[in-house]
Amino acid sequence: MPASNRPAAEPQSETGAERLADSLLQQGVDTCFANPGTSEMNFVAALDKRPQMRCVLGLFEGVVTGAADGYARMADKPAATLLHLGPGLANGLANLHNARRARTPMINIVGDHTDAHLVHDAPLTSDIAALAAPMSDWVGRASTAEAVPAEAAEAWRIAAQRTGIATLILPANVAWGRSDAPMPAPLTLAATPRADRDETASIARLLKSGSKTLLLLGGKALRDAPLALLDAIARATGATLMAETFNARFQRGHGRVPVAKLPYPVGMAVQALASYEQVILVGAHAPVAFFEYPDQPGILTPSECRLETFCAPGTDLLASLAALAGHLGIDTEARTPAPTARTNTGVRPVTNDPLTPDTACALIAALLPDDCIVCDESITSGRSFFAQSMNGARHDYLQLTGGSIGIGPPLATGAALACPDRRVVSLQADGSAMYTLQAFWTQAREGLDITTVIFANREYAILRSEMTNLGINHFDDNARRMLTFDQPPLDWVKLAEGHGVEAARATSTRALKDLLQASFRRRGPFLIEAVL
Amino acid sequence: MPASNRPAAEPQSETGAERLADSLLQQGVDTCFANPGTSEMNFVAALDKRPQMRCVLGLFEGVVTGAADGYARMADKPAATLLHLGPGLANGLANLHNARRARTPMINIVGDHTDAHLVHDAPLTSDIAALAAPMSDWVGRASTAEAVPAEAAEAWRIAAQRTGIATLILPANVAWGRSDAPMPAPLTLAATPRADRDETASIARLLKSGSKTLLLLGGKALRDAPLALLDAIARATGATLMAETFNARFQRGHGRVPVAKLPYPVGMAVQALASYEQVILVGAHAPVAFFEYPDQPGILTPSECRLETFCAPGTDLLASLAALAGHLGIDTEARTPAPTARTNTGVRPVTNDPLTPDTACALIAALLPDDCIVCDESITSGRSFFAQSMNGARHDYLQLTGGSIGIGPPLATGAALACPDRRVVSLQADGSAMYTLQAFWTQAREGLDITTVIFANREYAILRSEMTNLGINHFDDNARRMLTFDQPPLDWVKLAEGHGVEAARATSTRALKDLLQASFRRRGPFLIEAVL
Repeated sequence: MPASNRPAAEPQSETGAERLADSLLQQGVDTCFANPGTSEMNFVAALDKRPQMRCVLGLFEGVVTGAADGYARMADKPAATLLHLGPGLANGLANLHNARRARTPMINIVGDHTDAHLVHDAPLTSDIAALAAPMSDWVGRASTAEAVPAEAAEAWRIAAQRTGIATLILPANVAWGRSDAPMPAPLTLAATPRADRDETASIARLLKSGSKTLLLLGGKALRDAPLALLDAIARATGATLMAETFNARFQRGHGRVPVAKLPYPVGMAVQALASYEQVILVGAHAPVAFFEYPDQPGILTPSECRLETFCAPGTDLLASLAALAGHLGIDTEARTPAPTARTNTGVRPVTNDPLTPDTACALIAALLPDDCIVCDESITSGRSFFAQSMNGARHDYLQLTGGSIGIGPPLATGAALACPDRRVVSLQADGSAMYTLQAFWTQAREGLDITTVIFANREYAILRSEMTNLGINHFDDNARRMLTFDQPPLDWVKLAEGHGVEAARATSTRALKDLLQASFRRRGPFLIEAVL
Repeated sequence: MPASNRPAAEPQSETGAERLADSLLQQGVDTCFANPGTSEMNFVAALDKRPQMRCVLGLFEGVVTGAADGYARMADKPAATLLHLGPGLANGLANLHNARRARTPMINIVGDHTDAHLVHDAPLTSDIAALAAPMSDWVGRASTAEAVPAEAAEAWRIAAQRTGIATLILPANVAWGRSDAPMPAPLTLAATPRADRDETASIARLLKSGSKTLLLLGGKALRDAPLALLDAIARATGATLMAETFNARFQRGHGRVPVAKLPYPVGMAVQALASYEQVILVGAHAPVAFFEYPDQPGILTPSECRLETFCAPGTDLLASLAALAGHLGIDTEARTPAPTARTNTGVRPVTNDPLTPDTACALIAALLPDDCIVCDESITSGRSFFAQSMNGARHDYLQLTGGSIGIGPPLATGAALACPDRRVVSLQADGSAMYTLQAFWTQAREGLDITTVIFANREYAILRSEMTNLGINHFDDNARRMLTFDQPPLDWVKLAEGHGVEAARATSTRALKDLLQASFRRRGPFLIEAVL
């Protein structure tokens, strides 16, 4: 609307878009990952007048939602995303799926046509609410410029309290509509209760029953403080701690409690769980197979195994664990876990021999800077990293949670924005990186301290092993054409440089070591193509 | 399943996946654009035994669906796509949206968990049918290995007869299930009827009424043969021909009927339609604004204008137009349109001056090889190309139909696969190309004769003009950060080379001319970054 068309007589009024931006800011949402289009221009204009909102452009929407996920995992508060109608949302859905599985808080603002224009079925029209629903915990449509601050606050409440995905559709007429109504007061969250007495007593009884017990951990149970309490509980009761296979944020490294993960392959997972008579889920889901296979079980626990949940979502995990420890008579104050020496820092033999996945992982684990953030979408190549880094540098370990590949580069981007003083090390399979390689541009634009190691095996290696499971070891042309991408090889150095990120190639442990160390000493993003 | 687990006693039986592949092949679907995952391995194994199916890997699902669109636009028959569960489908939805708006036939095969596994809500579980519905004309879930051939044939019928998007969800248990039931006979389509006598007489009356009449054309009305008939009808009745703003496939160039397009900007579109008393829609939709703006109309035709449709979807357009011409007493046999000389082939002044969008477009239009295919996602930079190419080389002109940017590189890929003997010229905005740049790898892998010109203006230029419409001419930091991507600049030569495509940069008309001509002489893909 030309400036001259604006109602000059309403000096106090603001647009719906401005009121929405103010609502987000007053709820503490000060980072917006964005890929806007025409229907979002009023919101862009509103943000342009609010420099306190940090706006981060992604050149593809999967970057936007994946970065918002990485940000929130590390900042422990939601970012906003800004997406353009149904197709813009659709491009972000795969990483929304991962974020929902990580229980990441997020607020998506999705522009739409005016309410009046929908009936015309213009070319960009689609059913945004229907597209959002499968990957959202809440979907709303802003109604008026007056009401939008309260509607945005409700989206924030869903995101922050339920740690869920809230999607607010913003019709253009609401964005450009005006209101002089006062802004509502900021929302505050009700205190989260601890697990009730009965639940605590019941879990304590299970732990003291003498049955072979696993505490299966997920979500915020994998942070430093709850892990220390869980370790004390496990030591006192003889229970075992184990993490889920895929975790949103896992605090690890020397001085912290070393916890194994449930293996991914069905047979190994069944074996890992076979001896337990009871499994207590703490922030974890009941363990099921990632995929079902003929003649293999879908449920991974033995059929006679008892499954109980402690601390359902919405309870105060740390206070509940402390109460449980108290109930068990454990003096958690007195317990100071002995500092574990970093065991994998020794000088490794580095050679000019070709890299293997395991030598590359061992080297990365040994060289990790302390207090770094590791984003792991290395799929098959990085299998040995987890064990190799168990007693290494302290780090937050962020995984692909929903199985939708293409989260790594954006996840690293968001994590680095949330923690500008920490190095991010992104372990990245080449096939998976291709889904969201545009994130490298955002890393360059924002000058983020991210070291990406691309494991370049030039195939979907996990699918090769799935074919082997089908009894197919020799590929004819069609399988080769669908499962490998070595012809032509991707040149990751050029792909990174094309996005403005410096890069180099490593074909030996010596080269990888030199490049890793150099990248950790410099500011800004760097990519290493580790040719396997 | 290890080979040893297979039931050895059923030599005649085939898996559901094999029967699905056979059903597609017997309906003439012999091209499958794919990005498979674990749940699709049985189908990959089936395709591996069927070399008559051409399998084309896309390294991102938006490439898969966009290429299937380009293929079908040129082949006039559906391709299959192969996608991995809900997130894989979600990544392809934006270009499915464009394909649906183009009325492109397509059959999506989307793998899913086994029916039994869904209840466990494993990490990759989502509501695939709900995600598919907004961008599909039909969604089905394969039920058994026995029934899947008929279910696939129904998907084909929807795609081929309704020229729509059919999405068939393939649970893993159906894919690995076995059946020895005979294959059903191939489906054939019922003949499409021509428009009935009353409709034809009614439209003829309108054309002879003396009212100022526009024939607004879309879909298959823009092919060579119907255009010749429409031209004869227009000349005989004084009506005007005009194409929709965005068209799936428009046959143009010397010797063909020159037809203008409805402009995109609302004000210009309203003006272009202002004088018409009646608009007859032939394969076109009633013209509405792409977006609604304050104080501008959503419907572009004058309020008193009469809107009528001739040849609704499902009628035989060519036969109906011939009948209409007959009804009007036009001897279409006798009419031989005078060959129009190609008017833009003269030697152009080429200089070392910096390129502008208009000099670049003029040069490309002048140098187009005859019978090429032009894919146009040039957005603002290519605005002048359409007029400049009006009487130039004969070409098929393929546009972004649904407004979801990121179709160009895959569209060109699919078109080139359908027409291996024709050069594809892909006019591509830089911002839009970033959504699906992975298509360049498929172009290299398949050795496709595609010349891509990236118009590198390093901003979302269309959004700058939308901001101007809001009265905002000076960007502060947040608007600049969301609407421009010049810092750092994308290096398109490296991005292309990283995907295995040769590339070079042009900053003058002289360089652009040399590179275009060189690319037209060679085989395989080539990318030119035209720096604006």
